[in-house]
Amino acid sequence: KTHYKIAVLPGDGIGKEVIPEGLRVVKAAAQRFGIALELVEFDWASCDYYAQTGSMMPDNWKELLLPMDAIYFGAVGWPAIVADHISLWGSLLKFRREFDQYINLRPAQTFAGVRSPLAGRTAGDIDMLIVRENTEGEYSSVGGIMYEGTENEVVMQQSIFSRRGTERVMKFAFELAKTRARKHVTVATKSNGISISMPWWDARASEVASAYPDISWDKQHIDILCARFVLSPERFDVVVASNLFGDILSDLGPACTGTIGLAPSANLNPERRFPSLFEPVHGSAPDIYGKNIANPVAAIWSGAMMLDFLTNSKGAGHEAHDAILAAIKAVLISGPHTPDLGGKASTTDVGKAIAERL
Amino acid sequence: KTHYKIAVLPGDGIGKEVIPEGLRVVKAAAQRFGIALELVEFDWASCDYYAQTGSMMPDNWKELLLPMDAIYFGAVGWPAIVADHISLWGSLLKFRREFDQYINLRPAQTFAGVRSPLAGRTAGDIDMLIVRENTEGEYSSVGGIMYEGTENEVVMQQSIFSRRGTERVMKFAFELAKTRARKHVTVATKSNGISISMPWWDARASEVASAYPDISWDKQHIDILCARFVLSPERFDVVVASNLFGDILSDLGPACTGTIGLAPSANLNPERRFPSLFEPVHGSAPDIYGKNIANPVAAIWSGAMMLDFLTNSKGAGHEAHDAILAAIKAVLISGPHTPDLGGKASTTDVGKAIAERL
Ligand SMILES: CC(C)[C@H](C(=O)O)[C@@H](O)C(=O)O
Ligand SMILES: CC(C)[C@H](C(=O)O)[C@@H](O)C(=O)O
Repeated sequence: KTHYKIAVLPGDGIGKEVIPEGLRVVKAAAQRFGIALELVEFDWASCDYYAQTGSMMPDNWKELLLPMDAIYFGAVGWPAIVADHISLWGSLLKFRREFDQYINLRPAQTFAGVRSPLAGRTAGDIDMLIVRENTEGEYSSVGGIMYEGTENEVVMQQSIFSRRGTERVMKFAFELAKTRARKHVTVATKSNGISISMPWWDARASEVASAYPDISWDKQHIDILCARFVLSPERFDVVVASNLFGDILSDLGPACTGTIGLAPSANLNPERRFPSLFEPVHGSAPDIYGKNIANPVAAIWSGAMMLDFLTNSKGAGHEAHDAILAAIKAVLISGPHTPDLGGKASTTDVGKAIAERL
Repeated sequence: KTHYKIAVLPGDGIGKEVIPEGLRVVKAAAQRFGIALELVEFDWASCDYYAQTGSMMPDNWKELLLPMDAIYFGAVGWPAIVADHISLWGSLLKFRREFDQYINLRPAQTFAGVRSPLAGRTAGDIDMLIVRENTEGEYSSVGGIMYEGTENEVVMQQSIFSRRGTERVMKFAFELAKTRARKHVTVATKSNGISISMPWWDARASEVASAYPDISWDKQHIDILCARFVLSPERFDVVVASNLFGDILSDLGPACTGTIGLAPSANLNPERRFPSLFEPVHGSAPDIYGKNIANPVAAIWSGAMMLDFLTNSKGAGHEAHDAILAAIKAVLISGPHTPDLGGKASTTDVGKAIAERL
């Protein structure tokens, strides 16, 4: 394949400011490495669209997105217009599920120029990849309320893990570890407290691990695992976790590196039956929207992951990814810097500076 | 009441080393402040007992413990003899549930003499109390496996929150905030992802909060909340959380202060219908057991919380608590220090040094 179709969904708030900069860099890299991109921008999957139409997306959203090779997503959510659960479950979480994007891949790395809140940690000390199950588990939406409105009221919600859903995320993590220097997988669990689903999750980990004799692995309970992210983050390489635990770890990991505002993510359907989605981890940030001061690095880095994925982590897309990351690293050191990193530059300034290095 | 009966359950591993030091200090404080204690030690709720009898506790454990005012617990677990889920669910988690110890109270504080892993944080910067729901929620043990052994296998586990169980933990947190300088409650949630039980949890928080107009409060999703524990821990005062989220936060909070090995906990039945249980957060630590090098501070601090609770956070027990904490703080600065804090002192040395200051 030499030509890729990308749906661009800037969404809400600073999504609309950072995605243009991401596109600037993605286009520059695509040109340099000879990747032909067809970009199709949509204004839906946004709260503005909801305000006009009463739904987050048009009825034929699936039809429109299915022919795409990837979705480049900004951020969604504008609580003043639409309640979070409506905007999120009406767009982002719908994509993850209906496009079977069962891997949420999120790196956490220390960089020169970005201060880690942990004492003494500098560039290169922390370098982990968090592999989050992205479609099932604790986010099942199955459950309900009993005795509603009485003093006996009880709410129940299921965590649901399928063998297929669990095995595939474990396999993805172990395959990923093969490509890494340290070749280690940490499995997040809580089987001493969550006594039915988590021991079962552990059993799936053991089964899959036994097929990878060259990959070392261990499992750690989520409580002590979070503590160790703070106490000894350099020990982690690939970390695989359920939907909820992965959600927690992929905010905590970047927080420990000081890069929470810079963190990218890839919502992958590795088999490419459906388009995968690439988005910054940060949200729409109503408090800073409109000032052109949002840091575009998370969106740009997400764009780099997209190019890498399009060409199977090989060839032109892979080179483009590495070139973008090198440009990001250079600009994190030299500036320009947006206010979150102590600078005075605008979103546009940073996007241009990164694009110029390509 | 002027006479209190305490069941002492050292349990396994370093529980058997730290509890004697805790008792040394508790006895010294009780004597100084005129509190009459009757201590009854049991060797069960331990894996040794399991190895001899095939169960973690005698059949009449409830009868034996019910007359007690408190349980002073060491640690349980010795995976080489008994699987964790058997030892834990056969003792500690049984107490929490059957004695309706619905509050798990866990402080996290920075101290002089203990290095925080966070850059620039020193004594007094972090001072939070984590209020963990301790009997229901994600630890329900309700669920099961379907299509077992086939490729369609699915495991499900319920999270179950009752109105009574949720309201009482919220009330406890808001009442506690009244006694604090900053009077702020943070409610941990994940209502944007866990779409049935957590919005319901948020509604209970709002209801209870409305009865406390003088207490400020906010709710934060667990992912960003964990990140903020690392990025701006000084902003937290009282944090209330479900069983699972409280478990995570009460390892992460102490980790951020550098005191994870020093962290105490109180498993409370505030109405005193059943005995409450006081235990260090750390486990039985098979790797260091038998060397007399475990840090006894967590056990000693838990003993202080016990004395405070016995007299309703007033009078002699409250004074004893504050005196023990002052002695702990002094010894953390001057030493002796166990190896985990960079010293060469024994468990006994530290226990004696703290007791001598009383
Ligand atoms: C051992 C385990 C079941 C327990 C829990 O998760 O409650 C422990 O982590 C704790 O925090 O007391
Ligand atoms: C917004 C929210 C539902 C979402 C999640 O929990 O998955 C976000 O935190 C994320 O990590 O992408």
